[in-house]
Amino acid sequence: MIVAMQEKATEDQIDAVIDALVEAGVNVHRTTGASQTILAAVGQTSNLDPHKFELLSGVLYVHRISSPYKLAGRGFRPEGTVVEFRNGVKIGNQRVAVMAGPCSIENHDQIFETAARVKAAGGTFLRGGAFKPRSSPYAFQGMGIPGLKLMREAADAHGLLTVSEVMEISQIEPMFPYIDLYQVGARNMQNFNLLRELGQVRKPVLLKRGIAATIEELLLSSEYIMAGGNYNVILCERGIRTYETATRNTMDISAIPIVKKLSHLPIVGDPSHGTGRRDMVAPMARAAVAAGADAILVEVHPNADKAASDAAQTLYLEQFDQLMCELRVIASAVGREL
Amino acid sequence: MIVAMQEKATEDQIDAVIDALVEAGVNVHRTTGASQTILAAVGQTSNLDPHKFELLSGVLYVHRISSPYKLAGRGFRPEGTVVEFRNGVKIGNQRVAVMAGPCSIENHDQIFETAARVKAAGGTFLRGGAFKPRSSPYAFQGMGIPGLKLMREAADAHGLLTVSEVMEISQIEPMFPYIDLYQVGARNMQNFNLLRELGQVRKPVLLKRGIAATIEELLLSSEYIMAGGNYNVILCERGIRTYETATRNTMDISAIPIVKKLSHLPIVGDPSHGTGRRDMVAPMARAAVAAGADAILVEVHPNADKAASDAAQTLYLEQFDQLMCELRVIASAVGREL
Amino acid sequence: MIVAMQEKATEDQIDAVIDALVEAGVNVHRTTGASQTILAAVGQTSNLDPHKFELLSGVLYVHRISSPYKLAGRGFRPEGTVVEFRNGVKIGNQRVAVMAGPCSIENHDQIFETAARVKAAGGTFLRGGAFKPRSSPYAFQGMGIPGLKLMREAADAHGLLTVSEVMEISQIEPMFPYIDLYQVGARNMQNFNLLRELGQVRKPVLLKRGIAATIEELLLSSEYIMAGGNYNVILCERGIRTYETATRNTMDISAIPIVKKLSHLPIVGDPSHGTGRRDMVAPMARAAVAAGADAILVEVHPNADKAASDAAQTLYLEQFDQLMCELRVIASAVGREL
Amino acid sequence: MIVAMQEKATEDQIDAVIDALVEAGVNVHRTTGASQTILAAVGQTSNLDPHKFELLSGVLYVHRISSPYKLAGRGFRPEGTVVEFRNGVKIGNQRVAVMAGPCSIENHDQIFETAARVKAAGGTFLRGGAFKPRSSPYAFQGMGIPGLKLMREAADAHGLLTVSEVMEISQIEPMFPYIDLYQVGARNMQNFNLLRELGQVRKPVLLKRGIAATIEELLLSSEYIMAGGNYNVILCERGIRTYETATRNTMDISAIPIVKKLSHLPIVGDPSHGTGRRDMVAPMARAAVAAGADAILVEVHPNADKAASDAAQTLYLEQFDQLMCELRVIASAVGREL
Repeated sequence: MIVAMQEKATEDQIDAVIDALVEAGVNVHRTTGASQTILAAVGQTSNLDPHKFELLSGVLYVHRISSPYKLAGRGFRPEGTVVEFRNGVKIGNQRVAVMAGPCSIENHDQIFETAARVKAAGGTFLRGGAFKPRSSPYAFQGMGIPGLKLMREAADAHGLLTVSEVMEISQIEPMFPYIDLYQVGARNMQNFNLLRELGQVRKPVLLKRGIAATIEELLLSSEYIMAGGNYNVILCERGIRTYETATRNTMDISAIPIVKKLSHLPIVGDPSHGTGRRDMVAPMARAAVAAGADAILVEVHPNADKAASDAAQTLYLEQFDQLMCELRVIASAVGREL
Repeated sequence: MIVAMQEKATEDQIDAVIDALVEAGVNVHRTTGASQTILAAVGQTSNLDPHKFELLSGVLYVHRISSPYKLAGRGFRPEGTVVEFRNGVKIGNQRVAVMAGPCSIENHDQIFETAARVKAAGGTFLRGGAFKPRSSPYAFQGMGIPGLKLMREAADAHGLLTVSEVMEISQIEPMFPYIDLYQVGARNMQNFNLLRELGQVRKPVLLKRGIAATIEELLLSSEYIMAGGNYNVILCERGIRTYETATRNTMDISAIPIVKKLSHLPIVGDPSHGTGRRDMVAPMARAAVAAGADAILVEVHPNADKAASDAAQTLYLEQFDQLMCELRVIASAVGREL
Repeated sequence: MIVAMQEKATEDQIDAVIDALVEAGVNVHRTTGASQTILAAVGQTSNLDPHKFELLSGVLYVHRISSPYKLAGRGFRPEGTVVEFRNGVKIGNQRVAVMAGPCSIENHDQIFETAARVKAAGGTFLRGGAFKPRSSPYAFQGMGIPGLKLMREAADAHGLLTVSEVMEISQIEPMFPYIDLYQVGARNMQNFNLLRELGQVRKPVLLKRGIAATIEELLLSSEYIMAGGNYNVILCERGIRTYETATRNTMDISAIPIVKKLSHLPIVGDPSHGTGRRDMVAPMARAAVAAGADAILVEVHPNADKAASDAAQTLYLEQFDQLMCELRVIASAVGREL
Repeated sequence: MIVAMQEKATEDQIDAVIDALVEAGVNVHRTTGASQTILAAVGQTSNLDPHKFELLSGVLYVHRISSPYKLAGRGFRPEGTVVEFRNGVKIGNQRVAVMAGPCSIENHDQIFETAARVKAAGGTFLRGGAFKPRSSPYAFQGMGIPGLKLMREAADAHGLLTVSEVMEISQIEPMFPYIDLYQVGARNMQNFNLLRELGQVRKPVLLKRGIAATIEELLLSSEYIMAGGNYNVILCERGIRTYETATRNTMDISAIPIVKKLSHLPIVGDPSHGTGRRDMVAPMARAAVAAGADAILVEVHPNADKAASDAAQTLYLEQFDQLMCELRVIASAVGREL
């Protein structure tokens, strides 16, 4: 941690800051410049609250040097994390994975038809929501565990893996038999209790970035899971809130290369939530793969117009087939395959 | 324009709003719902200020229906605008163009070496800045018109076109002989006087989106140029300001497909300014082409580390060559070539 | 809901949109302008998803007219809601309330000393956190229910009411005997399950705006609580995320008069979280009251420097006394008292 | 400037960074921690580009310590700047100034009537725009210099000072005889050429914050003016762009106390542009004074509904009178007068 003193700080002020730092249990290294004194705190600084020192007399400002995440940092695993699933499918290696399916699991035919098409087009994961806390109490609330059973059967019938959102700690256990990848939604990115519990589970977790979360905060949230011993974390960019209103969110494609640089964790692009519009899904899926995403998560439905939720951002099956062809070429441009 | 009345609005309030609309010269169409009355203003509404009516008693809010841009709207030229240059190069057709060169033109060798490499790699435009209003009065201020002459010579020697930023009305005329495309920077996107003058010029204009501008505002700015009769406008996405601090700006890749839908004008991606970091330029250039950009604008320099300006975001020549190869494959994925 | 057709939309396209609207159960009112056709959907439009219609052929865009919140809208109770507590204290009337106390309840002396000072200075609520899900598993996690008991005793000893944050459904019941006002934190603003449960409780709820939530979303969230029959909802502005980094958040003071206009619910300003810096708390508390806030929520601690959490934004007791004097004068300027 | 090395940085990497810093002309102070090495660059660091060093191998990131502004920093004039005008009126002292008038100067009666009322209510400055580059070429473009002459006469008749916006370098000289304070609009905050010219002028400058500008950037812009020798700079907060759409901009009231802490320059609040709505002007003007603003700039018009520009945000004269009464009380709450 660096404490920069004001240009006219007195020796008494500087000494008071040094004392406060030493009292907090760190060593202090002083650099006296022509016009300014800088104090570097060395040692166990991760528990220090920079704001506390910022208010001391004579302090210009305080800056934390060491990145606040440790386990998620690139330096922890310079070679990159590859998450391996029970059927041998991997995320984070040279093959780009595709996760596709409806927003909500609705019935047998819907999920089986989707599974067949996802598999045929080259996807490896079937996605589908079972718990849908909707704005209106009269809207479809999801099929719950019976829906997950259906999805599991459909996935098994076609050799796919499954991913679905977990919204509460109490859902972790009942979901366990049916899914291969727990998805944590954007609104729960900082639900630390949920993250901690998922750290105890022995299944991979897909952690979505909150719509107002910085990349640093996303990495910090991933540490909660890893701190429990579950290192199989996959991050997901799905759009952030900006002043632009032409799209529901602004999908931050640059987060993909930034995460690859700062962290060893794989990262997935979700263009369906990132844009909220069917006609923007394909361009943004292509952009995500071109920028280096390890996987793509898209909503697709055999009868997209009648989907029980998120209809407007759900691809028709033919659009999905077409997208897969385009992604295959783009993957090759960045030395990968799909 | 739609005026939505509050649920408990009285007949007197409604009549007063209708009178105000009629006085403003438009026809009013009234829809009386079970709980709410809605007034639709029909006619010459583009000069109405919605805010004025919003403050009338009993009004819930006012919403403008017709898109405030006319000439820039997709409906004006559904087939899309293709800007053609004197050597036959086109922007907006099936071929993706590449504009590359240093941030600042520095000297003969620098610009000639760059031109040779840009041409060899398949670029069609040489870019370079001549006027650099820098933060520090002691920093390099640009070579001015002599720099543009050098760039012209270098471009002609290799069959390239030239693009450079115009910052003031007084620069339009002296720049004319040396450049093929006037670039308007992000800070000048709403310099309406400059835009109006460029509407009188018979050379294409590259209009960059401001860092806090919506896509609608970008399209509105383009109308200033077109209103003068200069329809050869090319738009450019170069990053917007968001809360994220890991990158200098957040390059809004989704602006590319949105602009293609809303407007007939070509759109270019500028990943150098969009990210501010050399290591992010290639991923974001690829993403832009994958999302449908008509051209890419990148900073490249034979000695990038020593560039007089923007060194940190300038590509090495070898990086540029490598990027061109990747873009060629990605262009083919979206049915284009480079 | 208004559907604006593109300027060149065909009759077939228009008919298809009308059919889709009628099928969705609403009446359609058509306005044919010189250049554009507008369709107004009248009837039960609140369940329509505007995005669905936006994707139909020939549609320019879709706009929802009726405000999506009903119970929270000003029209529902034009005279404004006044929340009354068991000791006769009211929020939403002409008296500005002050809620103060430590971020975390730490021990008997801390909370009793704070209570005495809050009361002496004219406050009516004692605040204090009992559950603290902290970043580090080694940091202070809060005293839990025993802490709330302590706060209850301290409050009762001085005739104060209590407010504390509820983080999970399971905490609602155990907290019930000890608190007078449930606080929902910014991160839980869209935890719809929690909000629904609080709708069943017969105690008032203080609902904080999320750091990326619009005012409309805040009002929509309040509807979840009111829909259950609990109309005693108080809103709270505590800072939003913007590009500015000089403060932790940007406290949106303008949200206060906007909420007063759009809704009948009282609104509170929280300058401690809004700024994150002790030296900004007083100016922003004054600004909130000047802008029309019904109450102020501030962090104060007998030994602010040593507070177990949020030390940097916690007022010293003398600062709090001084602030109360200033607020008293400002309240009088806006026709209120404190 | 601080360069933080990655945890696993090699000695070779560290040496290379030290060499690069030394070559750039600064001294390097090395702190070797248990897990990380930190390099502090001491000396003439203000010309260093942090981004350049960020890209060196083994660097985690680079942080500039010394604030990039010098003349605008609080340390430069700890007692604060008081700008004095020719009639003895001061801005920055214990008296809060009020600047009021129409958006556009329209005719003799309008400006004389406004001046009389501004003076009667206790204002000290008459404001009015003479150059109005409007969206539509058919809209009112402003009266130009003849308008400024009218405003000067009206102001002189009532003992007021004048303030008006300068939009181009060429306007500086013709405006000089008629105005007491040059206003630089938000869109020109980074028009460095204009700022530099105003540094040569011997009249105070009111510099408005850009809608996407950080407070640091505002202070940096003020340095351009001061660097030329004109230290009479007054800053102005007028709203920033955020994701919230309920107001045109989000007026950042917290910028007022932050600027008072970081800088010695006076700061003014402009609630008319900050909100864009007449009914929000008074609450936000009160908030600005409560937060410590040195002056208020508001739009007022004898016939606000018919104002030639910005009608929706212009106060009626009676509203202005009422506001002045409220501000007088609030000023007293913060130890000032009006």
